[in-house]
Parts: sequence; structure tokens; C-alpha cells
Amino acid sequence: MITTGVRALNLGLPIIVEALPPEDVVQIDWRPPAFGDAEAAGLAVRLDDDVTTAANLRAIELIHAVRPLWVAVRPAGEAIPHLGESRRLLHAGPPIAWSRMCGPVRGALIGAVLFEEWASTPEEAEALLEAGEVELEPCHHYGAVGPMAGVLSPSMPVLVVNDTTSDPPRQAFASLNEGLGRVLRFGAFDDEVITRLRWMRDVLGPVLDAAVQQLGPVDTTALFGQALAMGDEGHNRNIAATSLLTRRLAPILAGIEGGIAVLEFLAGNDHFALNLSMAAAKLSLDAAADVPGSTVVTAMARNGVEFGLRVAGTGAQWFTAEVGPADGLFFPGFGPADANPDLGDSAITETLGLGGFAMAASPAITRFVGGTPNDALAATRSMRRITEAAHPAFPLPPLNFAGAPSGINVLKVLDKGVLPLINTGIAHRDAGVGQIGAGIVTAPSEVFLLAVRGLAAARGLT
Amino acid sequence: MITTGVRALNLGLPIIVEALPPEDVVQIDWRPPAFGDAEAAGLAVRLDDDVTTAANLRAIELIHAVRPLWVAVRPAGEAIPHLGESRRLLHAGPPIAWSRMCGPVRGALIGAVLFEEWASTPEEAEALLEAGEVELEPCHHYGAVGPMAGVLSPSMPVLVVNDTTSDPPRQAFASLNEGLGRVLRFGAFDDEVITRLRWMRDVLGPVLDAAVQQLGPVDTTALFGQALAMGDEGHNRNIAATSLLTRRLAPILAGIEGGIAVLEFLAGNDHFALNLSMAAAKLSLDAAADVPGSTVVTAMARNGVEFGLRVAGTGAQWFTAEVGPADGLFFPGFGPADANPDLGDSAITETLGLGGFAMAASPAITRFVGGTPNDALAATRSMRRITEAAHPAFPLPPLNFAGAPSGINVLKVLDKGVLPLINTGIAHRDAGVGQIGAGIVTAPSEVFLLAVRGLAAARGLT
Repeated sequence: MITTGVRALNLGLPIIVEALPPEDVVQIDWRPPAFGDAEAAGLAVRLDDDVTTAANLRAIELIHAVRPLWVAVRPAGEAIPHLGESRRLLHAGPPIAWSRMCGPVRGALIGAVLFEEWASTPEEAEALLEAGEVELEPCHHYGAVGPMAGVLSPSMPVLVVNDTTSDPPRQAFASLNEGLGRVLRFGAFDDEVITRLRWMRDVLGPVLDAAVQQLGPVDTTALFGQALAMGDEGHNRNIAATSLLTRRLAPILAGIEGGIAVLEFLAGNDHFALNLSMAAAKLSLDAAADVPGSTVVTAMARNGVEFGLRVAGTGAQWFTAEVGPADGLFFPGFGPADANPDLGDSAITETLGLGGFAMAASPAITRFVGGTPNDALAATRSMRRITEAAHPAFPLPPLNFAGAPSGINVLKVLDKGVLPLINTGIAHRDAGVGQIGAGIVTAPSEVFLLAVRGLAAARGLT
Repeated sequence: MITTGVRALNLGLPIIVEALPPEDVVQIDWRPPAFGDAEAAGLAVRLDDDVTTAANLRAIELIHAVRPLWVAVRPAGEAIPHLGESRRLLHAGPPIAWSRMCGPVRGALIGAVLFEEWASTPEEAEALLEAGEVELEPCHHYGAVGPMAGVLSPSMPVLVVNDTTSDPPRQAFASLNEGLGRVLRFGAFDDEVITRLRWMRDVLGPVLDAAVQQLGPVDTTALFGQALAMGDEGHNRNIAATSLLTRRLAPILAGIEGGIAVLEFLAGNDHFALNLSMAAAKLSLDAAADVPGSTVVTAMARNGVEFGLRVAGTGAQWFTAEVGPADGLFFPGFGPADANPDLGDSAITETLGLGGFAMAASPAITRFVGGTPNDALAATRSMRRITEAAHPAFPLPPLNFAGAPSGINVLKVLDKGVLPLINTGIAHRDAGVGQIGAGIVTAPSEVFLLAVRGLAAARGLT
């Protein structure tokens, strides 16, 4: 048994008490509410009422009731309503015009134009995009999500997940993970990339679809719940979910023409399950896409220039702010100056309670994103302070099987001054160089300050 | 920062200080040396010299230098030297006569006689065994290991692991895991069991062998090191290693006739990798099977009646004592009265530093064997007190990647009064009922008291 012998409590900066021996000081992690924005702090206090409480309970209930089922792999243009109706490409994050886009997203769009054969050279493709002859819209506007550049074109195969509990039934979609190296999602568009995309369209997609039809719907909640007990956090570490899924699919894939090549692809891609995790998270959160009065976050996404936030009480509205690069570990030969600002729809996993929120499950990831296993426990505990609930289907074994913190409440973010932690890959700022590191990023405080104003306006409080 | 405010240190039973508020007491886990056996304690002190220290360093160096490679699956009678020379069966644990054997081992031996077609009815098989017409010897005497009853017959396929660093090259062997339900290793011998054994002989063994020949040698140290970062402890939890292995083998198995059935078997057997973990541990520890002067344990094994211990300094000698059933969680409908005393060669994993010693890696296992994730950390920390080293290839992420405690030192066990913890399945005492639970067992103190006398005799100190 240990008793505390505290001599000083410090609510300010650590420097204030540097004269005292450190063992006599307890540093309290206190920060001014609403990041020092008094008007936003006032709105947050006014919003913190019974209406909000009831709406947030309802939002969490809706989100946690979803049990996404992976049911198919289909061409995006076929599966995603309205996508194929015109010459249109989807990208990660909130809306952004071509002229403001970052290198990796531009590169990926050029690659997608070449893959769709709307142009035959990169120069022609760029001219087409520059001229506005291809509609560019966020994945999120089509019920879809994609990692990094997140570019989806009509011929690319997408994972289809179903929510059979909702009326009418809902779906969500995600691209198939390409693996590491020179890949479209980091903005590469050379022959190797386009050849792989064709193989994914002609073999990987149809073979996986045939396999999942034969296997029957895959309960993704059970899959990722099990993976959390195996060191995955469902965002930057996916080897357990990928291996569990491959083991289930293998006997079926072995009996399908092309199955051997697909099994080879799965054996070499530790991140295959990430995109399924993203699609499932998107489907779950969309259940609360429009819950008047709720201050629960329903999407966080980055386009490499801006960070976008959506909140249940303000529906489809995006609150956006500039975003910086992640803080993390760089691969040899690269450093912060090479890093693109944070990118991708993958923060949808954190929005549900995975990734940075479920770090406690994944001590091994600290070797990938930096830090120690204790930091991983601390990260999850800190996310508890800004979330509404523990996700009942995502127990974290190292925290005695407590559920992952789920359902970010804008008001709690402002009150505690604690920002959501997001595990992320770091892309090179130039198109096509690829991943140069991995790390942790926090959502920018500005989007929460904008959101509280938007929520107050929606409630007629301003 | 927290300071301690201890008012009392207690080295005795907790009851002594029950009058004090618990937060003022630090309970020190002190126990009398050598479990109160003054003569053994005296011998242990005399043995704790430079000769022992140097020999133990050498033993650990030899054990940790082994990098077992899984290279083949072959019929036991072909792969294991001398096994097929006469009508002979192998069993788990130290040597024991038929007349003293427990129900599950007797049942498994009857099953093996039927499988080998040395008899055509269980009654005939039993009569043959009763009459001593089949030689019965421990797996360990043939470089082999088997879980639970551990029965191996010449026609059964075995995993073959090689140590290419030793001169001459060494091998170790383990049976293939049958899965759960009615299986030979729990003493079942009905038609379902024999039919499965025939399939394992005719399909599973040859197909896996063809796959591993095509894949090339599998580095088991890397495999189990990776599995420790995914919640396995390499004894009672093997889903990560099994899934990783299946994912690597799948593209190859898909191209071999019979491969689909093997992939189905692998998809349904979360414990497939256990037997590989056991073979690899056996191979590693055998490197120190004969290191004069060393007090490092090289084998722990149970035959369902007795627990057997081998130590580097006393070579092939067994120190044995009666063993009790494990303390754990029972499946619905069963209780301690149904439990067979502890059984199987699988404690070879703990002898190397896995299983109960690597519990910290596997918070999820506490739901299978009882306890909490904190108990898992405490178990590993406690095993550090009786081991010589941290295994450099088995980092435990929740303990900041410190290596698993490896190399049990008989002298430390006596000095600290801490017994090795073993994760184990619990067999029904009647042949063929199967697994009725899982839990934790400690090695009996008697074997360590016998071992210190044996070690002292070997050093000429008695």
C-alpha cells in the first residue's frame, strides 16, 4: 500500500514549481476552457443542458447499435449511388478545389484519371483536372471513406458494408488497400501503380467478392473487437484483423480461380483490414449523422490542407481549419520538412473509438508512432475525458476490458482543453514519394471552436 | 509525483498487521528459504558459487543461441531416431508404468494401439498394454514433446524443427494439434478420433510438409516473438501465431491437392501453433541438456500422476513428485472433482519463458485461465525473481518490451520460495471426456528440493 505525500498541487505551467523537488508536486492537467476563447466557452456552457444530454444519449445509442456486415466488393461506380452518373472522382477530407489541393491528392487524382482512361498522359490528365472537367467531391458525401489521398474512381472496387438494423438499410464503402510502397493513396501514378489498380479491378475485387458471397456476411464488430485483444488499434496497426480475416477466407479463396494471387496479396499486406475498419466506422457514425441537438462528432477527415469536422447536431456541415503534419517517427532519410500536412479519411476510426483512442490495446504500436506502452495507456485514458461512452463491443484488455472511449463530445473537448488524438501515416509532400513515417496528430482546436458556434446557432442560442 | 508514506513493513503473514490501516503497510513477499527445508537451503547456499554462475551463464547462452527452424512434417517413426525399431509408444511427462497411469493417458495409448492396428478392439488394445507388449517411454527421451497425454505412435505425423547452429545439427519433434472436442490427447479413442488421426496421417501431414518445403524453413523465434506482441503467450493462447502462420502458408496450400481441407482445419483450430511452440522450446532447451554445474531447468513435464523436472547440471535425470490439478476456470457442468492431475509436456514453453512466464503479453488470457490483466503483469514480474535472464527474442510490449523471464534457476526457486507458474488445460480424469477447463498450476516444491540434492551430489558436495 502506498500513501501520497503531496506538498504542492500545480494547476499552471510546470515551470511555476520547478524550485520544489519533483516528488513533492502533483501536476494537474488543467487548461483554460475553450482554449482561451471566452465567447466559445460561454456558448459551451449554455449548450450543456438537458436537450444536449438527451440528444447525445440518442446519438451514442444509434452509433453503438450498428453492427456493420461486410457483404460485398463491387466497382465503386456500381455500388455507390450517383457516383458513376458523370465524370466524377472522390477524395479524402472536407471539400477542396483543385487549385488548393496538396501534392499527394493531386497525384492520386491524376492517377485515377489515367486509370479510368479519361486521359492518356499525366499532362493531359492534369490539364483536364485544372480545367474543371472532372467533378471532385469528398468521399464522405457519398457514404465512402479512403485512407490518405482517399481517391476513388468509378472502376475501382470498394468494400461494401451493410447496416441491416436501420430502416431503410444503409451502406458504407471504402477502397481496397493497395499495400505499401508506390501506391495511389500517396499520390504515385506511374505504370506500376496503374498496373496494380487494374489487377485490383480485374482480380482482387471480383475474387474477394466471390469469397465473401460464399462465406456469408462478416461481422466487422466481432472481427475488430477480437483484433483489439491482439494488439491492433484498428488504424495504424491491422495485422491481427488482416490475419484473422485471411485465415477465414483462405479455404474459400483456395477454391476460386485467381485465389492464390489474392492470398499472396493478403499475405503481404498487413494493412488490408484498415479499409474495412474505416468503412465499418463510417457506417456506424452515419447512424448519427443528423441528430438535432447532439454535440457528438460524426466525422473527422483531412484533405492534406484542411481538417474537417462534422457533428451530429449540425448534420452535413463541415467545420474546417488548417492542419499541420503529424508528430512522429520518420523513416531513414526523411524528416519533418518532407512531411505533407495530415491527410486522409482514416480518422473516422478515432471518431468511433479506435486508433488513437484505443492505443491502450496496442502497446506494440508505440514502436511505430513513437512513445512507450505507458503513453499508450495514458492516451486512451485521456480520450475518456472527451468522450460520451465506452464502446461495449471494443473492450481493451490492458485496461481490464473497459470499452474503448467512443463518441467525442465537442463540449467536453472545449471544457477539458483536450484534443482528439489521431494515429496516422505521414505522406511525403511531393506526389508519389509515398509514406515517410507514422505518428500522432491532434485535431486542430479551431474546428471545435467553430463547431460550438454552429451548434449554438442550430439551437437558436446566437 | 507520488511519495510513499509507509508506516510498517511486514515480512510475515498479512494477519500480523491487520490492526493497522492497510494503506500504512507494505507487505513484503518473504518466505522461508527452500520451503522450510533447512538441509536443502544449506545445499543451495553452498551451490551458489562461481562454478554455478559460470555454468548458468553458459546454459543460458546455449539456450538463447538456438533459432529453431520448422523444416518438415514427417511420420514419427521415420523422423524420430529409434522410435520405429520396435512396438513402442511415447507419452507425456516423466517415465511411468502402465499400472500407475491416469485415465486420459491410458485412453490415448489405447487409441494409438487401435490407430496403429496392433489391436482391433479397445479391449484387445488394453490387454496388449496391460501385458507389457508395447514399450511405453516418455516423449522427452526421444527429443519429442506432446500436449496433455502426449501420446505419439510411429505412423503419426510430427513437426520437425532443426537447430542448424549446433554441431552436429539437432532436431526436436512434436505431434500435430488435433483441435478441440473429442481428441486423443484427452484420452478419447472412438471412431471419430481414429478417423481424424488417419486424415492427419494421410492428408494434413503430407500436405503441410509439401507446403513447408515450398515455403522454406520457418523461423519459429520470429513467429512467436511477433505473436507475443499480439496477445499470445505461446501456451494456452496461440491464435495470433496460428493466424500469422496460416496467412503465410495459405497461398502455397491453395496450390496443393488437399490444401483446401488443410486450410479449413487451420481456420478452425486456434491452437495449431501450440505444438510448434513446444517443439521449438524443446529444441532450445535441449541445447543445455547437459551443462555440468548449471542449476538451470531444462524440462518440466507432467504425466498426470507425477511432475518431472530436469536440470542442466544433472542431465537426463528426472526429479519427480506427485502433482495436483490446476486451479482455474471450469467449463459449465464441470468442477474440481472432475479434474485430472496436471498433464502434458506443454510446460516446456514455460521452461523457455513463454506461457505462464509471458502472461504479461496476454491480458486476454486472464479471461480463459482466471484473474485480471494486472495479475498477468504480476505473474511475469514474479517469474523474473526465479529466472536467470530476459529472453532477447521474446519482448513483452506491456512491460516496455522487456524480454520474457527465461531460464529457471533451481537455487532462486528455493531462495525466493517462488514456484514456476504454468498455464494449462484441465483434462477430465476419465479417458476421452476431454478438456473441462483451463487454469494455472505451480510446479510442486518437492522437485526443486530433490533437484538441489541431485545437483549437490553431482558437484560432490554431499
